[in-house]
Amino acid sequence: MECLNDPNIDLAVIDQFYTNFAEPSNLAEIRVQVDKFIESVGTGPLVLITSGGTIVPIEHNTVRFVDNFSAGTRGSASAEYFLKKNYKVIFLYRLKSCEPFTRHFNMSQLLESLSISDSGLLEVNSPLGEKLSQIVKDYKQQKENLLLVTFTTLAEYLYYLREISFAVKPLGSRAALYLAAAVSDFYIPQTNMATHKIQSKDGPISLCLEIVPKILRPLVKFWVPAAFVVSFKLETDASILLDKARKALHRYGHHLVIANELQSRKREVILVTEKENQKITIDDSEMEIESLIVDEVVTRHKNYIEMGRNVEKLI
Amino acid sequence: MECLNDPNIDLAVIDQFYTNFAEPSNLAEIRVQVDKFIESVGTGPLVLITSGGTIVPIEHNTVRFVDNFSAGTRGSASAEYFLKKNYKVIFLYRLKSCEPFTRHFNMSQLLESLSISDSGLLEVNSPLGEKLSQIVKDYKQQKENLLLVTFTTLAEYLYYLREISFAVKPLGSRAALYLAAAVSDFYIPQTNMATHKIQSKDGPISLCLEIVPKILRPLVKFWVPAAFVVSFKLETDASILLDKARKALHRYGHHLVIANELQSRKREVILVTEKENQKITIDDSEMEIESLIVDEVVTRHKNYIEMGRNVEKLI
Repeated sequence: MECLNDPNIDLAVIDQFYTNFAEPSNLAEIRVQVDKFIESVGTGPLVLITSGGTIVPIEHNTVRFVDNFSAGTRGSASAEYFLKKNYKVIFLYRLKSCEPFTRHFNMSQLLESLSISDSGLLEVNSPLGEKLSQIVKDYKQQKENLLLVTFTTLAEYLYYLREISFAVKPLGSRAALYLAAAVSDFYIPQTNMATHKIQSKDGPISLCLEIVPKILRPLVKFWVPAAFVVSFKLETDASILLDKARKALHRYGHHLVIANELQSRKREVILVTEKENQKITIDDSEMEIESLIVDEVVTRHKNYIEMGRNVEKLI
Repeated sequence: MECLNDPNIDLAVIDQFYTNFAEPSNLAEIRVQVDKFIESVGTGPLVLITSGGTIVPIEHNTVRFVDNFSAGTRGSASAEYFLKKNYKVIFLYRLKSCEPFTRHFNMSQLLESLSISDSGLLEVNSPLGEKLSQIVKDYKQQKENLLLVTFTTLAEYLYYLREISFAVKPLGSRAALYLAAAVSDFYIPQTNMATHKIQSKDGPISLCLEIVPKILRPLVKFWVPAAFVVSFKLETDASILLDKARKALHRYGHHLVIANELQSRKREVILVTEKENQKITIDDSEMEIESLIVDEVVTRHKNYIEMGRNVEKLI
């Protein structure tokens, strides 16, 4: 499968890799939703954001699975900032990970703040009430501009990402992809999976995980060749981070890598392009770093669209 | 480690197994909360419910982990029914899995139902408003009778379970343990864990998982010897389910195993004791099977307490 990372990759090889996984039963239905949403885009920009971690089942009747750490904080926060910048947003995220708007409160806080008024109405009390009022206003204003699609397994993620990319392709450079999901690098081939729950009496078990080929390469080259593509690189070891980020740019031919370290990712990221590194940091705890990241991405995306138009004029 | 399942087990062996895992930093704090809660029990019954799945980290700086499938539906629903039966409930559950009361609604539904009234108050609209009003009433009535404690990793679960068991022990037979959590049977010893995120360029990886000894045995024998202990057995293969359930009773010496199959677990369970199997089924989709399970468990727990009193009188 290593050939998937080869610059001379062809589509037949990718399609072959996909046959390792069953196609989700609702794939056609999701395509219809996405197509309908894209019709509403008009002449403005659209971003596809991926968010949260994928799971890889260990058993066919899934009781256990390998998961990737990701609460979906970065993706869901970024979605709100893209909406503020008048983007249409397709938010492809792990079921039960953070969502735009609802991420600001949790159920227990809310239950604690609810009371029944004299007239029998259910009200949200202060101070959560004030905070929520603003969120409700923002949500009602933006909900037509946001499409939510959920995944759980790596297989669902792979199929939805490809299908949505196909749907987005006609938008050309007006489409941005902001790939913040924590996608498993490994999978367990169906033939290696146990049918039933593995029994502990069988003794210690050994799991063999195969490498998932980097689908960023076919995505950039074939699925959305004109789109502005941003990927993320998360490492726990700072010493290899920038090197890996720049290598990814070379290998996949996309536009921007946002490099971050696990420990400091909420205060510092580095935007890595072919030519330069731009560090973004915050120290003001009131501010979210995603606000600054999205500002930068939107500026670069606008320049990219503009550049494309100038090239078209020259031709 | 197999010796942990030996009837002649001694505490030193268990303590040795625990040293595989670092003690959670808030363990003493949780003990204080639990002790305070137990003071409020008076002469009534208390149940410790465990709920949700444990995770087993693959790396020290955790990016990936092995997880156990469990939304926490059974545990959180059961907690509500125990509260209705005037139990004090300690709910030890996986962070972000279902909680009593909040399990009845989700954030997106709620956001959709919120609106700002003419007087500027945030209100929950119908039909969610009516449903939520009843939940809010129930919650306010019961919240003093419920203590929530969260875990994420297997290590946290093991330490909290033991510590809460110690705290509960003085209640004798008035304490019930209702062990509905999906606890990993396997763990990765610290010495086998990678320090940093495993790199996919290193090729396919092989994970070696060691068996977690069944801590039900020391729990029943040493930690809460007088308590009424209920465990759950979930299998995907019906043919081995009842046999495994009865073997568990023999091996660990507790009082009841609730056996269920993954596919049918919301409609059917079998209560397995030394002497008999009692099948519980529902076909009315309005009813939750946990209501019937808890009815049965409470009846059996009452008989157990009564039996203990009669024995005391005879002595």
